[in-house]
Amino acid sequence: MVIGAEDRLAKAGIELPPAVTPFGPYVPAVQTGRLLFLSGMLPTVGHEPRFVGRVGKELTVEDGRGAARTAALNVIAVAKHHLGTLDRISRMVRLGVYIATGGPADLVRIADGASELLRDVFGEGNMPARLVFGVASLPFNTPVELEAMFEISE
Amino acid sequence: MVIGAEDRLAKAGIELPPAVTPFGPYVPAVQTGRLLFLSGMLPTVGHEPRFVGRVGKELTVEDGRGAARTAALNVIAVAKHHLGTLDRISRMVRLGVYIATGGPADLVRIADGASELLRDVFGEGNMPARLVFGVASLPFNTPVELEAMFEISE
Amino acid sequence: MVIGAEDRLAKAGIELPPAVTPFGPYVPAVQTGRLLFLSGMLPTVGHEPRFVGRVGKELTVEDGRGAARTAALNVIAVAKHHLGTLDRISRMVRLGVYIATGGPADLVRIADGASELLRDVFGEGNMPARLVFGVASLPFNTPVELEAMFEISE
Repeated sequence: MVIGAEDRLAKAGIELPPAVTPFGPYVPAVQTGRLLFLSGMLPTVGHEPRFVGRVGKELTVEDGRGAARTAALNVIAVAKHHLGTLDRISRMVRLGVYIATGGPADLVRIADGASELLRDVFGEGNMPARLVFGVASLPFNTPVELEAMFEISE
Repeated sequence: MVIGAEDRLAKAGIELPPAVTPFGPYVPAVQTGRLLFLSGMLPTVGHEPRFVGRVGKELTVEDGRGAARTAALNVIAVAKHHLGTLDRISRMVRLGVYIATGGPADLVRIADGASELLRDVFGEGNMPARLVFGVASLPFNTPVELEAMFEISE
Repeated sequence: MVIGAEDRLAKAGIELPPAVTPFGPYVPAVQTGRLLFLSGMLPTVGHEPRFVGRVGKELTVEDGRGAARTAALNVIAVAKHHLGTLDRISRMVRLGVYIATGGPADLVRIADGASELLRDVFGEGNMPARLVFGVASLPFNTPVELEAMFEISE
């Protein structure tokens, strides 16, 4: 018996926020063939930033990890909203983690805050390729943005 | 009757520049399957930067919007050059907007400068997923770079 | 007779390093359909950074070119490890070059350090779309990160 993402989500007791709506003329997710591309997801709750500032300046690495986790919840919520169920996802293909830094910061440890949540939901055997770098600034002065791409089962 | 991108372009009176040629050992566009990936497009005209500087430092948000629009014209010109006609595009899948910032800047408003032009050409119902962040620097000290991916009709 | 990437690699006398293993909960490469996505590749050798610092501050443009070349060797090594042979690659589709800058730097010239090596291995007729920008920081304070996507032959 295969344990799917919806079961893992329920067992971990993770509550998803409502799916984020766009901040401009774009859409939260686009599917082409079997690939689902998500827009950049920020650590927002109800269209308001939950974390503000740069890691290594106004924010600590632990703040950054919390922001990465919050943004990852938005990734999962938007994917579920678009697909109806997370069980249509056959695997996560690519995860971009873009971190606003204002000084030295452990980028890998911050990114792991998102990856660990996504692993809990999509499973150890479905980890994506990952890209991590520090950026100069992010929309609404948030500290982390995530970009996710999924493969959808036929 | 469906109004296509070529009709919209003509009705809006938008004149496309010649397609940008590469600045190094890469190509402006690569198609694989039904996906068309474009190289990063800058606010250049005739291989020369039309905008120079960082938003929030040497340039205003309005400058940034103009640069985003100029780069979007290059996106459209390269896609048309590669495909022969924009009507082969079934939808825009992903738009990355990378903005060189040297201080606080309204990244969303700058990115909208590109998205609004692309919406006028490709239509309200074909908006892409979007990724926006501020970078430390861009080639030729330009303020905006766009990365576009399209789905091509069979 | 077609000269493939494995032949070109051998003729150029390029020795590949062992394939990089991940620094966290992600994988080095994911294939979906005919597309192979690689994780961000750094100028590391044996899990240790070979170049540390930012271009235009602690490092010169020539350092940046060397770092780009070292990261490109990791791209090739990971692709080969995943596929068994580079000859399964029908073309390189996309190359992202992300450069940590701490002052003015010739981003195009640095990126060419990666592109020239990849051209030598994959051939002049298989150049990818390319994206180049300067970032605020990279994992382990390295100066260059590469993101590669390949098309795999059926």
